[in-house]
Amino acid sequence: MDQNTKDAIPNQIEDMQAEIHHLLPWLIHHGMDDPQGLLRFACPDPSDPIQGQLTSKSAAETKDLAVPEDSMPIRDVINEFYSITRSRVLTHHPKFFSFIPSTMLPISWLADIVVSAANPHLGGRLAGSSCNLVEENLMTWFITKIGFPVDDAVGLSVSGGSMANFMALTAARDEHIRGVENHSRAVIYVSEHTHFSISKTARVLGFSPDQVREIPGLQPDVLAYVIRNDKKAGLVPMAVVTTLGSTVSGKIDPIPEVAEVSREHNIWLHIDGAYGSSIILSPSHHELARGIEKANSVTWDAHKWLFSSYGCGMLFVRNKTSLMRSFSAHSDFLDGSGREAEAEFWDLGLELTRPARAIRLWFILRVLGSHQIGRMIDRGIDMAKEFETRFRSLKDWSVLSPAQMAILIVRFQPEGKDETDIDGLNQRIADDALEKNIAAVQIVRFDGHSCLRMCVINPRLASTDPESIVNAMADIAIDSLS
Amino acid sequence: MDQNTKDAIPNQIEDMQAEIHHLLPWLIHHGMDDPQGLLRFACPDPSDPIQGQLTSKSAAETKDLAVPEDSMPIRDVINEFYSITRSRVLTHHPKFFSFIPSTMLPISWLADIVVSAANPHLGGRLAGSSCNLVEENLMTWFITKIGFPVDDAVGLSVSGGSMANFMALTAARDEHIRGVENHSRAVIYVSEHTHFSISKTARVLGFSPDQVREIPGLQPDVLAYVIRNDKKAGLVPMAVVTTLGSTVSGKIDPIPEVAEVSREHNIWLHIDGAYGSSIILSPSHHELARGIEKANSVTWDAHKWLFSSYGCGMLFVRNKTSLMRSFSAHSDFLDGSGREAEAEFWDLGLELTRPARAIRLWFILRVLGSHQIGRMIDRGIDMAKEFETRFRSLKDWSVLSPAQMAILIVRFQPEGKDETDIDGLNQRIADDALEKNIAAVQIVRFDGHSCLRMCVINPRLASTDPESIVNAMADIAIDSLS
Repeated sequence: MDQNTKDAIPNQIEDMQAEIHHLLPWLIHHGMDDPQGLLRFACPDPSDPIQGQLTSKSAAETKDLAVPEDSMPIRDVINEFYSITRSRVLTHHPKFFSFIPSTMLPISWLADIVVSAANPHLGGRLAGSSCNLVEENLMTWFITKIGFPVDDAVGLSVSGGSMANFMALTAARDEHIRGVENHSRAVIYVSEHTHFSISKTARVLGFSPDQVREIPGLQPDVLAYVIRNDKKAGLVPMAVVTTLGSTVSGKIDPIPEVAEVSREHNIWLHIDGAYGSSIILSPSHHELARGIEKANSVTWDAHKWLFSSYGCGMLFVRNKTSLMRSFSAHSDFLDGSGREAEAEFWDLGLELTRPARAIRLWFILRVLGSHQIGRMIDRGIDMAKEFETRFRSLKDWSVLSPAQMAILIVRFQPEGKDETDIDGLNQRIADDALEKNIAAVQIVRFDGHSCLRMCVINPRLASTDPESIVNAMADIAIDSLS
Repeated sequence: MDQNTKDAIPNQIEDMQAEIHHLLPWLIHHGMDDPQGLLRFACPDPSDPIQGQLTSKSAAETKDLAVPEDSMPIRDVINEFYSITRSRVLTHHPKFFSFIPSTMLPISWLADIVVSAANPHLGGRLAGSSCNLVEENLMTWFITKIGFPVDDAVGLSVSGGSMANFMALTAARDEHIRGVENHSRAVIYVSEHTHFSISKTARVLGFSPDQVREIPGLQPDVLAYVIRNDKKAGLVPMAVVTTLGSTVSGKIDPIPEVAEVSREHNIWLHIDGAYGSSIILSPSHHELARGIEKANSVTWDAHKWLFSSYGCGMLFVRNKTSLMRSFSAHSDFLDGSGREAEAEFWDLGLELTRPARAIRLWFILRVLGSHQIGRMIDRGIDMAKEFETRFRSLKDWSVLSPAQMAILIVRFQPEGKDETDIDGLNQRIADDALEKNIAAVQIVRFDGHSCLRMCVINPRLASTDPESIVNAMADIAIDSLS
């Protein structure tokens, strides 16, 4: 066997490298056979379709895109991907207002390109290739912004808010409950705004549904009363979960008052700010997060309101030792060997392999700077208020939940129609607005009605957009009556 | 305020887009101020340093790389990143043999570039933008390869093996143990090869250390005996964890025999094949995974032996309903509403936000094809055997663990030296081999000695490398005696 035959595999990989070298500039600017190019993917033009259509034909076609036996040309596979994602929902389109929209900026994509090439393993220090130091420094910056004690606290990048909430409540359990035989006595307090990941977490930790108590609005007096009763009954109040910016309406639980109750009763205070923690960075509205510095743990998603692509969440914990107690690789970490000071990332969470998520966020923050980040967050708040003002000025439109944390809920409810008709009209407004590429607004049930919900945080929205979008929706509403 | 002032933010983002458009071609090919370019990052030349040096100066410098108040030019931040990662460990360098090396190929990087621009949210169907269908089809392909029943089984991409192992054991618990009050009776059986993520999982699930029993080599007779005794004592045998390719030595627990014991006693059989499951795709060695089709769950990391960058693990579960029982968003999913058939990804695991990890793997497999993938895996097995043969032919070198699943453990042990000296010599060989850029080999404790461990799975290794690397290490060994 000659050398070429023996080295067919590395030679083929070298050919692949050359092909990629050749393809990349074209791919990025001219998008292969798609005139948009990848930069346009990452930063869509406002005129681009907010949502493509997934036809049953294209759904069926993806079935054929299985793994072939033989190699395929790279450009063919890229074109297949284009074809698949033609039906995509552009959650980072400036006129996408459903769910929590993606606020991804093109710098986030650039960071992904650079970081993915370096392929750092952020599980530990050695393979972390100094990116671990960047993550640690970045987390310290956030810790300072939250107001946690810098020497004791720790931050960790995770895939998202559900993971962060899970880890926080695991740490809370291990702080307050010792021994599996006592788990059935633990109680977690939540409000009606609490994200479903909390009840899922409770189930995964092995708790039964009645160990999670919903206190409406987490009213402090009621909370304190229920806690006292639970203690009397021999139960162990373990954690209170306050929401900083609910997904539906941007609601904020009364954090300072709940913090006081938690302190008094020595209960873990977790703040689920997956969406809302970014308000800390707002020069004009940071007081909405007042009390967050008293928490034991904070969830904060950079892919929500910090302009990152998906998969960039963060968990902050007041005392690093709480996370280590629950997650360190060796259960004897507190053995006085000094190992604690040398904790690796894998000692702080479930993951060993961790992609370098936080480096992307470092790129974004470093390129934009904190002042610009603050202005971009403020812009969302202001734009949502302008949407509210404009909807209020319209005949037959009601504001059911005013702009809070850049989330607004409105409803078109003309006189002389019954509730079912009105629900249908609002659904039709949402459908038509999407079809005409005016806006993606979300139909939600709120106070028993079908309403139109908008989350207005994309910083690329133009100052003329609220007027033009509201007017266009008003026109659709009038048309829908005929 | 004029329009330009009002729209300063979207205008600045547009400028950023233009700057990125301008920077990208240069960045990819010429690497800004680093002559390597990003493609060379992703696909390092064999002559590139396997490991840079992190000086205390550069560690100190990262402290200054915090978040600034004002914006910074993109190219400055990229150059900072280059500077930081100059000290990186290239785990995907062809001569990196420590840990489980990264086998990332440049096509994995290309896929990251394309997928990151599209920014799909793989938590659910709508924002999944058809990428969800691609993931589902890809997982079905793997399910077929494992031999699970296609209609019942499910696969899910996760960040890595630790997450997959955690989810598998959570599902096992919920299958076999009902009610938190019974958790203290659960027992998990492992071998001495079991990864530390299993004992961490047990702790997070609230179990005490004595609920995890180590059975040496998972010998089937011993396992059956211990299970019967545990049952007699009123305990609940819950899961057996078999290892398919241990991290240290590539060891495989006796899967078919353990499967028989599990079946007999109705215990969840989990196979931790984070490293070794890829052997299924080998045309010559797939029989090493015999019995895997009888498991309840299988862990499989694509960032280990499937040529992906980090953060691309997979969990496969025989019955989809097992995952839904543990992780569905609503605890009443089995209410007969038919919702089960409509499970979203967020009903199958801890995560709601899920980046599109599996699409990268789809790119890799589709471009290479299954035959080439199989050949690349076989090449690792063959190369490790050639390393073994060459070490065996050397005077004073011993093979302590023969090439198994492409992992080899050797030791230089010249006569007339005591064990402490020999440990030191082997450490010196590892240090010198790295310093001379010959190879990164790992010092491990094995059978009480310091040994040299190599994991030989990078498909870019040339056919002449085993000879030249072994000879160079032998020379270092001889030098170390003088």
